[in-house]
Amino acid sequence: MQTDEQQIRQLIETWHRATASGDLATVLSLMADDAVFLTPGKPPMNKDAFAEGFRAWSGRLQIKTAQDIKELHASGDMAYCWSHISVTMTTPETGERNQRAGHVLTVFRKSPRGAWLLSRDANLLTPAG
Amino acid sequence: MQTDEQQIRQLIETWHRATASGDLATVLSLMADDAVFLTPGKPPMNKDAFAEGFRAWSGRLQIKTAQDIKELHASGDMAYCWSHISVTMTTPETGERNQRAGHVLTVFRKSPRGAWLLSRDANLLTPAG
Repeated sequence: MQTDEQQIRQLIETWHRATASGDLATVLSLMADDAVFLTPGKPPMNKDAFAEGFRAWSGRLQIKTAQDIKELHASGDMAYCWSHISVTMTTPETGERNQRAGHVLTVFRKSPRGAWLLSRDANLLTPAG
Repeated sequence: MQTDEQQIRQLIETWHRATASGDLATVLSLMADDAVFLTPGKPPMNKDAFAEGFRAWSGRLQIKTAQDIKELHASGDMAYCWSHISVTMTTPETGERNQRAGHVLTVFRKSPRGAWLLSRDANLLTPAG
């Protein structure tokens, strides 16, 4: 039996693996239907907009992500996590690389069926390196 | 008897009022001792660094903030809120104005004594207008 923290760490690992392999269905299964993604200078993004964005680069870019979890705390049916994330997107044909890094604050909720899901996410990544 | 949501809304109102009047002690009383503030392109800021930043502009700039709470959800001893915030800082001598706007995702925790405190904050504000 995994603790809440272990379940959420596993969710995050699965998220990165599915992102790297372009597996949108798996990524979507890890977030709540009412998930909200906040980024600097842009309107909030819902699950549909996230999926649209994912499809726009998936299959076209190689993506590598690394997440350093600084803190993860669960209480009852809610949890938060803050991490430092770095993302490298490479265009295979040209070798062109786009790197972003920064912090992310994420809220997770436990669904009525007991599964933790990403619920709210504030992504502070800026161009790096 | 106020609900958790009412208590947190009151905390947010008090925070803005105290910020506008340069009342650092009140602002600090509304956050946990281990509070963390995340902003784009900067290292995480703790309570001491927050206080230092506050003192740097307080008394020197007029500050006006407006917070539009988009969602506030409390469960047990944890809550999150996401909002759109706009901040106008004016230099009284020159009339020079600096405006920033964007979203904020905040995690609140209920202290053992029953008071809600700001705990983790991701601030996505960018230069505006």
